[in-house]
Amino acid sequence: MALINENYLKLKAGYLFPEISRRVNEFSDANPDAPIIRLGIGDVVKAVPRVIVDAIKDGAEELAQDDTFRGYPPEQGIDFLRAAIAEHEFASRGVQIDPDEIFVSDGSKCDSGNIQEIFGVDNVVALTDPVYPVYCDSNVMAGRTGMADDDGRYAGLVYMPCSAASGFMPELPDQHVDLIYLCSPNNPTGAVMTRQTLAQWVDYARREKSIIFFDAAYEGYITDPDIPHSIFEIDGAREVAIEFRSFSKTAGFTGTRCAFTVVPSELQAYTAGGESTSVHAIWTRRQTTKFNGVSYPVQRGAEAAYTPAGKQAIRQLIEYYLGNAALMRQKLEAADITVYGGANAPYLWLETPAGQDSWTFFDTLLNQAHVVGTPGAGFGAAGEGYFRLSAFNHRDSVEEAMRRIAQL
Amino acid sequence: MALINENYLKLKAGYLFPEISRRVNEFSDANPDAPIIRLGIGDVVKAVPRVIVDAIKDGAEELAQDDTFRGYPPEQGIDFLRAAIAEHEFASRGVQIDPDEIFVSDGSKCDSGNIQEIFGVDNVVALTDPVYPVYCDSNVMAGRTGMADDDGRYAGLVYMPCSAASGFMPELPDQHVDLIYLCSPNNPTGAVMTRQTLAQWVDYARREKSIIFFDAAYEGYITDPDIPHSIFEIDGAREVAIEFRSFSKTAGFTGTRCAFTVVPSELQAYTAGGESTSVHAIWTRRQTTKFNGVSYPVQRGAEAAYTPAGKQAIRQLIEYYLGNAALMRQKLEAADITVYGGANAPYLWLETPAGQDSWTFFDTLLNQAHVVGTPGAGFGAAGEGYFRLSAFNHRDSVEEAMRRIAQL
Repeated sequence: MALINENYLKLKAGYLFPEISRRVNEFSDANPDAPIIRLGIGDVVKAVPRVIVDAIKDGAEELAQDDTFRGYPPEQGIDFLRAAIAEHEFASRGVQIDPDEIFVSDGSKCDSGNIQEIFGVDNVVALTDPVYPVYCDSNVMAGRTGMADDDGRYAGLVYMPCSAASGFMPELPDQHVDLIYLCSPNNPTGAVMTRQTLAQWVDYARREKSIIFFDAAYEGYITDPDIPHSIFEIDGAREVAIEFRSFSKTAGFTGTRCAFTVVPSELQAYTAGGESTSVHAIWTRRQTTKFNGVSYPVQRGAEAAYTPAGKQAIRQLIEYYLGNAALMRQKLEAADITVYGGANAPYLWLETPAGQDSWTFFDTLLNQAHVVGTPGAGFGAAGEGYFRLSAFNHRDSVEEAMRRIAQL
Repeated sequence: MALINENYLKLKAGYLFPEISRRVNEFSDANPDAPIIRLGIGDVVKAVPRVIVDAIKDGAEELAQDDTFRGYPPEQGIDFLRAAIAEHEFASRGVQIDPDEIFVSDGSKCDSGNIQEIFGVDNVVALTDPVYPVYCDSNVMAGRTGMADDDGRYAGLVYMPCSAASGFMPELPDQHVDLIYLCSPNNPTGAVMTRQTLAQWVDYARREKSIIFFDAAYEGYITDPDIPHSIFEIDGAREVAIEFRSFSKTAGFTGTRCAFTVVPSELQAYTAGGESTSVHAIWTRRQTTKFNGVSYPVQRGAEAAYTPAGKQAIRQLIEYYLGNAALMRQKLEAADITVYGGANAPYLWLETPAGQDSWTFFDTLLNQAHVVGTPGAGFGAAGEGYFRLSAFNHRDSVEEAMRRIAQL
């Protein structure tokens, strides 16, 4: 008989965001006239910049003519986009990344979910708590954990709690770990890692021959000039890190789908017998076998994000959302809510009022203020007592949401 | 230390098509003026139909306006496309598939590579030989095999040789197998499974509680009215099968990226303890966690494939390529080459002349005729002595390629 992968049966409930959708749909079916404001899932709302949309349309038009038609793209991305990324995301900051080290994909969620697959099942995985659920769930699915306890913590994972006291920064593990997920600017807390902190992680990984999965999907929101945008700004990181980047929260590509992952040529992983293997070669094998590249018109659109007009429009989008975040922070603090994040990140991390648990606060906010946020407990046990609000909405909706929350 | 997934080290050489690319690039670097004709990788060359490109452009334009902007699509596909697929691909043939059973994706290669992931590592996997390499390689990566022998056959897999004597149809295994990959119209042989043959497989799977992965990416090329387009035309298949479909070879979407997979609600897999689990629920969990949906403009384009204009244009594209196939078959037979396939499929499966091994014939054809094909051995041990030619090229190139082969 066909056997299921029983690791999937260890997973708690649904993936967080579908579960939120389910509750919101249930509420709006029962209350069709309630004017819901969504500050839950981190999905952008503003239009994709004109220069980018025009490039997508031009790319599509090329497909309509036999003499400019393009078939299968290279699985790793087309040269023009890999070169543009290398130049504008890295060389412009003095970081040397070869275009060949850039793997264009249809999303950072996909890449950060798939990356664990090329590593052995016996690796010890370290995660922050709270954490973006994909890092955790993808490792549960792969069999790197036991069952979850009542707090939703899976046996076998090393959790690194991030509390207000430490500025939501994880401490270096006091044991050996093999694979480490870091996210800065952080989803969900909005905290950012300094150069010094990141250098400590790179040192740890070099010492322990660990690999850091560095999720920088929100780097565009960094305003503080001292905060690194890429882990590869840190000396030695090329030996120990993989970085995830996305066009979703910069160019507004959540519905368009394009991202990229950087795997440096130096990066090595090991057989149980201690022989080293190029991670770049193995990820190439994975992508060429199980992925078929990103839609051509979309890659043309992503390329246009690096034109002067594209860069300027993206700057404006980010400033708009950061303006939302600043406004939210101000109004929430005026309502005596303790708030973190929202300065170098599009996320605000609130202490739930009156010590409510976070799903209760979610239901309260939905039922009474018709505002959707994300319960901290959905990001891990240490997220209990916290709540994430996203700055991704229109200004008037954000203002209205803040009025309603203040009235609660 | 970070451990690599050592199963990847069992893989033989590169994935077939990148290996072909490498040899072709090497040849063309050395012979920049050689007029190469590519009949190797099954990539289409004709433009995407106008009505579809216009829909993609209109979809992109919606993203350029705040009030029509769309963010994250549902991971399973947007309702309008799932409904159109259910109606035009299935209901129109009297097959009842609910839109909720259709998972839209960015490619059948991705889906047929990822599907094994939700099943246990202890399943016995049956593959035809020759076979589309993704089915095999993805199971090697997942650890369902031992090492490969000198013929490239991995220990632990059940190979079902397909020879000319049996019309390149696999025989039912004489042992129990859990997961079965079938592909009809077949890549690489071009053979098609009759209703009767397919019914035998469905019976086998029902009896053994096995699951059939049915790859129907080339169903659009079926001209014989007696050949089923979907495994779900067979009674009982909903209990035992998953089907893969693609817009790549119909609407010319190899560069645009859209496909879909059908997972019926009845389909069950089992724990080692014998408890049944909904495969639909587990695939939903996989896709919502590790995939983020298909680009919105692309889904609009795929929807337009089902308009009257879209259908007519696709019909013309398929007839064009089938015209190539008929021409190729005629010219190759005139050159005393034994040819199979090419009637209900865009692939021709040749016996290599004078018993050459297939990579030698590949090099001969590339060096002397500047024609690129695909060596049969790249599809498995039983493909040795055969060679695949694809009908996906412009008519004049196909004619020229046939002239050169005849001269050889």
